[in-house]
Amino acid sequence: MRLIRDRLAEEVVGFGRDQGKLELAKSLKAIHRGSGRIDEAAAGAELIVACTPVQQIAEVLCQAAKHALPTAILTDVGSTKRTLVEQMRQTPFAERFVGSHPLAGSDRSGVGSASASLFDGKLCLITPQLVEPTLVGNVSRFWEALGMRIVRLTPEGHDEAMAATSHLPHVVASILAASTPPAMLTLVGSGWLDSTRIAGGSPELWRQILEENQAPALRALKNFATISQDWIEALEASDFARVEQLLNAGKHIRDSVGNQHSSG
Amino acid sequence: MRLIRDRLAEEVVGFGRDQGKLELAKSLKAIHRGSGRIDEAAAGAELIVACTPVQQIAEVLCQAAKHALPTAILTDVGSTKRTLVEQMRQTPFAERFVGSHPLAGSDRSGVGSASASLFDGKLCLITPQLVEPTLVGNVSRFWEALGMRIVRLTPEGHDEAMAATSHLPHVVASILAASTPPAMLTLVGSGWLDSTRIAGGSPELWRQILEENQAPALRALKNFATISQDWIEALEASDFARVEQLLNAGKHIRDSVGNQHSSG
Repeated sequence: MRLIRDRLAEEVVGFGRDQGKLELAKSLKAIHRGSGRIDEAAAGAELIVACTPVQQIAEVLCQAAKHALPTAILTDVGSTKRTLVEQMRQTPFAERFVGSHPLAGSDRSGVGSASASLFDGKLCLITPQLVEPTLVGNVSRFWEALGMRIVRLTPEGHDEAMAATSHLPHVVASILAASTPPAMLTLVGSGWLDSTRIAGGSPELWRQILEENQAPALRALKNFATISQDWIEALEASDFARVEQLLNAGKHIRDSVGNQHSSG
Repeated sequence: MRLIRDRLAEEVVGFGRDQGKLELAKSLKAIHRGSGRIDEAAAGAELIVACTPVQQIAEVLCQAAKHALPTAILTDVGSTKRTLVEQMRQTPFAERFVGSHPLAGSDRSGVGSASASLFDGKLCLITPQLVEPTLVGNVSRFWEALGMRIVRLTPEGHDEAMAATSHLPHVVASILAASTPPAMLTLVGSGWLDSTRIAGGSPELWRQILEENQAPALRALKNFATISQDWIEALEASDFARVEQLLNAGKHIRDSVGNQHSSG
């Protein structure tokens, strides 16, 4: 909606299978028009942003690119980058692809949750691996115009970081929710609710993300399990000085971040 | 402050060592007067509410009870109950003690974060083990007057439930924070921030809670570690159908709770 509000694009076209969602997006001024046909939606496009689950991104970009301007820049908003960059490398469009990952998630999804300020002050990670340098500037300026700050990473660096900061928290939230006896769910407080919030995300989407980022996610989870084992040993040994040390280590890291981008 | 605002008590007296905090509490109308001497603070009291770390509750209650009315009711706001009830059973005040645990935590602490609506609609768990039945009604009505809903539990049932719904989430948040490589902390998003928020709590307070509730907390953590191991095996085996099953199990539990008391 910011694209239209701030007149950042001559025409914003939505592609999707659900006519109702396209109508809603139009009424919310998130798009000028929508189409269920990718050839029609992509015709004449200068910039294509794929917003599908990660395992469909490469295919959708290639389909759209065939119908867009031959100079069209291709990007995405996917949560993993290494395999996507490998896939795009095999296509005729490699030199026009810049991976993007705006860190502006929410537990809400769908166009009904859209907001013109969604990206304000948030980070957008870009992984400009295959592309012409001038096109990287174009993609950066696109996200900056939406209010984002740009960080450049390699696809591998991106995926390793996201394993620790995004994919592991999701898995841990899921385990924490699953480990709570159903009879005790009426007694949960704000701690449990905050710590498990992201476990409500789509299992199909997250299965794809973990499939794309299997090795880094597994490393992050094993690292987490090692510290869990330290905890178990300290509690079994009634070593509460060690327990307090472990609590201090977690607090030290948490306090160093604060809540400055807690809506991000 | 609600006690004074709604005229629920003739006089509200604060006891504490920090004169500045007592002054602040007075200026915020959370107390009528404060004192650094427990004999002075407790003189004539009909109800004593201990708000210290769990390992100091029994001692503070007994100190205060000596100076209060001989019919004074004793309660607390501590996070664990089994050992506290055992401690109070050894005292002359056993029949006047009702354990209370208002589930109205926040990541903020101190009188400066006080709010008259802190308890509104939240649960207060009470563990009326040793006490006269009529006194239980008095304590219940006290918390209900502050807007809370009462749930009665045994001390053991309380501690077992809190291990799963409060103490385990704290430990997990701490492990998650501690397992994040410092170089990646600039890239965390709202998921990491929410999932680790409670890790910022006081290590000294939480060490005490875990010391008081060692066995149930250890059981909850081992149960959590068992599901973590299922996850590690599924990822190692590239069994993404199993990964999706695990994600679904977590989502099912999380969705069954919703966010209805997410500020609680």
